[in-house]
Amino acid sequence: MINVGIIGIGRIGRVHGESITKFVKNAKIKAVADPYLNDDGKKWAASLGIENAYTDYKKILEDKDISAVLICSSTDTHSSISMEAIKAGKNVFCEKPIDHDVKKIKEVLDVVEKSGLKYQVGFNRRFDHNFKAIKDAVQAGKIGKQQIIKITSRDPEAPPIEYVKVSGGIFLDMTIHDFDMVRYLSDSEVEEVYAVGSVTVDPEIGKAGDIDTAVITMKLANGATAVIDNCRKAVYGYDQRAEVFGSKGSIAIGNDSDSLAVLSNENGVTGEKPMYFFLQRYMMAYAAEIDSFVEAIVNDTATIVNANDGLQPVLIGLAAKKSVAKNRPVTIAEIKKDAGL
Amino acid sequence: MINVGIIGIGRIGRVHGESITKFVKNAKIKAVADPYLNDDGKKWAASLGIENAYTDYKKILEDKDISAVLICSSTDTHSSISMEAIKAGKNVFCEKPIDHDVKKIKEVLDVVEKSGLKYQVGFNRRFDHNFKAIKDAVQAGKIGKQQIIKITSRDPEAPPIEYVKVSGGIFLDMTIHDFDMVRYLSDSEVEEVYAVGSVTVDPEIGKAGDIDTAVITMKLANGATAVIDNCRKAVYGYDQRAEVFGSKGSIAIGNDSDSLAVLSNENGVTGEKPMYFFLQRYMMAYAAEIDSFVEAIVNDTATIVNANDGLQPVLIGLAAKKSVAKNRPVTIAEIKKDAGL
Amino acid sequence: MINVGIIGIGRIGRVHGESITKFVKNAKIKAVADPYLNDDGKKWAASLGIENAYTDYKKILEDKDISAVLICSSTDTHSSISMEAIKAGKNVFCEKPIDHDVKKIKEVLDVVEKSGLKYQVGFNRRFDHNFKAIKDAVQAGKIGKQQIIKITSRDPEAPPIEYVKVSGGIFLDMTIHDFDMVRYLSDSEVEEVYAVGSVTVDPEIGKAGDIDTAVITMKLANGATAVIDNCRKAVYGYDQRAEVFGSKGSIAIGNDSDSLAVLSNENGVTGEKPMYFFLQRYMMAYAAEIDSFVEAIVNDTATIVNANDGLQPVLIGLAAKKSVAKNRPVTIAEIKKDAGL
Amino acid sequence: MINVGIIGIGRIGRVHGESITKFVKNAKIKAVADPYLNDDGKKWAASLGIENAYTDYKKILEDKDISAVLICSSTDTHSSISMEAIKAGKNVFCEKPIDHDVKKIKEVLDVVEKSGLKYQVGFNRRFDHNFKAIKDAVQAGKIGKQQIIKITSRDPEAPPIEYVKVSGGIFLDMTIHDFDMVRYLSDSEVEEVYAVGSVTVDPEIGKAGDIDTAVITMKLANGATAVIDNCRKAVYGYDQRAEVFGSKGSIAIGNDSDSLAVLSNENGVTGEKPMYFFLQRYMMAYAAEIDSFVEAIVNDTATIVNANDGLQPVLIGLAAKKSVAKNRPVTIAEIKKDAGL
Repeated sequence: MINVGIIGIGRIGRVHGESITKFVKNAKIKAVADPYLNDDGKKWAASLGIENAYTDYKKILEDKDISAVLICSSTDTHSSISMEAIKAGKNVFCEKPIDHDVKKIKEVLDVVEKSGLKYQVGFNRRFDHNFKAIKDAVQAGKIGKQQIIKITSRDPEAPPIEYVKVSGGIFLDMTIHDFDMVRYLSDSEVEEVYAVGSVTVDPEIGKAGDIDTAVITMKLANGATAVIDNCRKAVYGYDQRAEVFGSKGSIAIGNDSDSLAVLSNENGVTGEKPMYFFLQRYMMAYAAEIDSFVEAIVNDTATIVNANDGLQPVLIGLAAKKSVAKNRPVTIAEIKKDAGL
Repeated sequence: MINVGIIGIGRIGRVHGESITKFVKNAKIKAVADPYLNDDGKKWAASLGIENAYTDYKKILEDKDISAVLICSSTDTHSSISMEAIKAGKNVFCEKPIDHDVKKIKEVLDVVEKSGLKYQVGFNRRFDHNFKAIKDAVQAGKIGKQQIIKITSRDPEAPPIEYVKVSGGIFLDMTIHDFDMVRYLSDSEVEEVYAVGSVTVDPEIGKAGDIDTAVITMKLANGATAVIDNCRKAVYGYDQRAEVFGSKGSIAIGNDSDSLAVLSNENGVTGEKPMYFFLQRYMMAYAAEIDSFVEAIVNDTATIVNANDGLQPVLIGLAAKKSVAKNRPVTIAEIKKDAGL
Repeated sequence: MINVGIIGIGRIGRVHGESITKFVKNAKIKAVADPYLNDDGKKWAASLGIENAYTDYKKILEDKDISAVLICSSTDTHSSISMEAIKAGKNVFCEKPIDHDVKKIKEVLDVVEKSGLKYQVGFNRRFDHNFKAIKDAVQAGKIGKQQIIKITSRDPEAPPIEYVKVSGGIFLDMTIHDFDMVRYLSDSEVEEVYAVGSVTVDPEIGKAGDIDTAVITMKLANGATAVIDNCRKAVYGYDQRAEVFGSKGSIAIGNDSDSLAVLSNENGVTGEKPMYFFLQRYMMAYAAEIDSFVEAIVNDTATIVNANDGLQPVLIGLAAKKSVAKNRPVTIAEIKKDAGL
Repeated sequence: MINVGIIGIGRIGRVHGESITKFVKNAKIKAVADPYLNDDGKKWAASLGIENAYTDYKKILEDKDISAVLICSSTDTHSSISMEAIKAGKNVFCEKPIDHDVKKIKEVLDVVEKSGLKYQVGFNRRFDHNFKAIKDAVQAGKIGKQQIIKITSRDPEAPPIEYVKVSGGIFLDMTIHDFDMVRYLSDSEVEEVYAVGSVTVDPEIGKAGDIDTAVITMKLANGATAVIDNCRKAVYGYDQRAEVFGSKGSIAIGNDSDSLAVLSNENGVTGEKPMYFFLQRYMMAYAAEIDSFVEAIVNDTATIVNANDGLQPVLIGLAAKKSVAKNRPVTIAEIKKDAGL
């Protein structure tokens, strides 16, 4: 059993707080911190039996009884708090992305490596039952040598335009999960990226300098080709599918829905829409990722998602961004060079 | 290659005529006969290249070049024309049922047996790709020892009330196909029947002395239990499903539809309704049953559906009818005794 | 927030203990009791932060701070502890069945009615997402007037023969859930029952005087016909399906599986088996049923499953048992008369 | 009713011959021609009641009673015979591709336009029930404004290496159908193509200068992005799926299989593989395309697939080929310029 602290109790911080309380056996939340801590936040913390609620996260870093922190603060603080936390000797779970700046991620990565501490990035989908089932089949050799990997990832609705402006762009904000999934399922690195981006959902997104629809093709080191299609809005809900095709067959997943009920009537044979969005679809995955992080600490094993797993998708995302801008394929090597890595 | 004659060119006679022309390699239709033959019928026959169109079916029976006849006339003539045709040395394909009167069926059966001619009854579903796939799996031992057989059979709309009145009742008209399917899939005989009948579709059907909804449970000689559910009207179309459950697993079929297209939108995830009715769903099965009949003649092998297969479902249907009337299980032995068999 | 006590901490008692801790907001387990309480039981209780673990359940009944008890003890004690608990002023959640003796159930029912306390029976499937989706569709009028209700319920493996001997027979032990589901989905009462029972799984079950396979047909007060098929063993796992067919369409559910992964290879297109058994399939339903019970107490509303809902399925089960014994349909009225109700 | 002649009675010529005989109402095959005509070919023609079988196709062109020809000869003869046939006043159905040389296709196109005759190219998939269902939904506005189009097209086995060498490459041989489908479903033109090609099936294909696996991304004039994934070998059979995603929803199709039978056992829940290959999957589409061609002649309406529909996919294929060679996106305008169009 370890004590953990949560830094940032916005939406995702609370998701983790609640799932730790319910589902994570070997962790107890000793403290939370949020610069905007108010009565509602205090009440929420108390309802989970959390002893301490601070405005200053440094109090958590100073607490010797806390061995791990969850960084759920705003993205622009992820890398600096990560650095501080590691220096304070804490194991760190950090929400994605570590940073939009590759150099800062690299610094975190270097510090983590020297520290011997655990560092996990919040790529929750790796812990989803469906994606895990594909991964297991691939690892068990059921599809043979990989040839084509396909991921569909569409949101039920576009984020507010104010969010879009600070999101780092669709590739670093939304597709980053899919880039991680390509690496996870393939167990290989992306070498080159070609992306087509378009604005088909909301012209305001285009005015904000972003795109809302994308198809990204990737050449992988293992010889397979991966393709992701994204859209910020699918009227039927959160569409999260994947397929790995190889020499011995294909393994694919569809969407979870709230029930399997199927209505047959004059209009056809109708099943339920996919679960609405990530909080519905991945609720158990959020619990499982923290449980896995805690077990890695308790048993001193590697985390399923490490600091390098936080770096690579950002490189791929930057390559995709550049590919759209230049309308040509872009290698990861080029992006690394751009970044001075 | 053999010459065949079709007796009765109403709806089902024409279905056979057209499918023989298109799909049955070793048969040529030399003549058709229908007491109500008119210009339309003559034109139809000519369009298929059929040489002769008679009003009197006896002309077909007298034609030495015709080795097989299809009896597609009204039900009340099936057994007598069967008898005549066999005596004239013709192989016979007879639409179901052979007769509503068990004794008359038995007479046909006896005459057939002595004749050495082929006799096939029109249980077309045995030749449907889906039902055949179940049968194949069962025969291949894939489900092990049979335990439960389930058949769902619902029509898209009730027949006209005038038809209901002369249909012989739901069990001899509609369920008779399902009784045949129970025997076919199980390769066993029904020993006892319990049926619940109700009028839930149209009160007029009740007034006509029939029911429109039924659940029939059967004890089989092989130890399995079979259950059929029927309804004269399902708003979503022709519902034709089956399942055989056994010690090694279960094999089941769903409904064919016009396409596999699935629309995902705000209302859900919607596939097409089942194909509308038997002419759509079983078109290829009609061709296959005649092809199989012709091959049995050409190769002198047993027909897939023989005269006894025409008798047994009628016995089961009469047992179901009596079960509803008496509200108790009824054995086939009792029905045979009733019929003096 | 209310305090609850759990009487009996065998398998199902622990399921409830754990799900209350994780998922039930307004309840705290103050005490557990079990006549066979040992170190393991004490340790389990401590791990959930439960203060008191007794051998004598009367200590729970005497505790004024406890307003509700969960009766998870052996079936033969359900009715007597129910009576005591109600007399002690406790709201009661009682595992099914209340008793095998209809008169004792009736006594509990009468005492509950006078008490004004909440009484809920453990028909957990009513709280399953899939069954609830059917119920919601039926209640919303989506299938129109009910005509046929079908339930398939097959276990992945037969219980130990020693359990079979004291189970009260398949109808009171296993089918009882399905009888409840017929009543729940139809919102109607069963009037007459015809059951076919057979021994197709294990001859030892037959020697123990029970059956392991059954098909049960029921006439309902609302004019619909219901049919249940049961088997104690399906090699592919826990098969829990249902369908309600009516004048406007049909609503049906299939089986939950651990993931939606589908493997396409030389052997076909293969999805996962259904979840193994009730603990997997209904884990969230167990949490939801207690949450619903607690909310009924807190808000003083009716429980979703009341004492009469505990009585009716036992009557139906006894009718099914008698139907197999007598090989004839049996009315619920006859069973009531038999029982002196 | 029109008379047709078939030029070339190899595999596809015979497919058309048989399906015309069975399914095409308004056409009669008056003659076939094949330079390699042998006894087997003559026998085949006779079995379908075809009067004339020539070695020289010019005899068909000279026959005044023949108003349409099907060009099913080797690809290198398609454009020249097309030219001759049009000049002879015949309506032409030509198997794909018209030519690998864009200029020759353009010549055919120009001649067709002046002639006023019907010209149809053999893009049979447009006539498949599943693809047609998508098209119908798109045209009916069910998915709103198109955003992403996805096509999966994988063969069950690679062609012989000798065939690969003369095939024109995967894009002109295999993907050409998918390029046509993108145009058909989108009702829009492709403007730019980026393709990733790899050799993952058979190194011999690579040695022959071709690829066997590809992912092709296309920017369409209507603002949508299309992506095709191809592989020459899928062990589970012919994989032919498509999806059109738009502002109002998504419409998708899966694979037809020989039956809908699903086996549930200890290994999972297994359905059948997709139908083996194009002859199985598209048999009815071959009939429907000729029927449609004949109806266009009889009713003097436009063919569903015209000469320009034969040209455009070749341009797209050449763009894809160049994209792989140059590893950059290639516009159709560039290809036209390359070809001097």
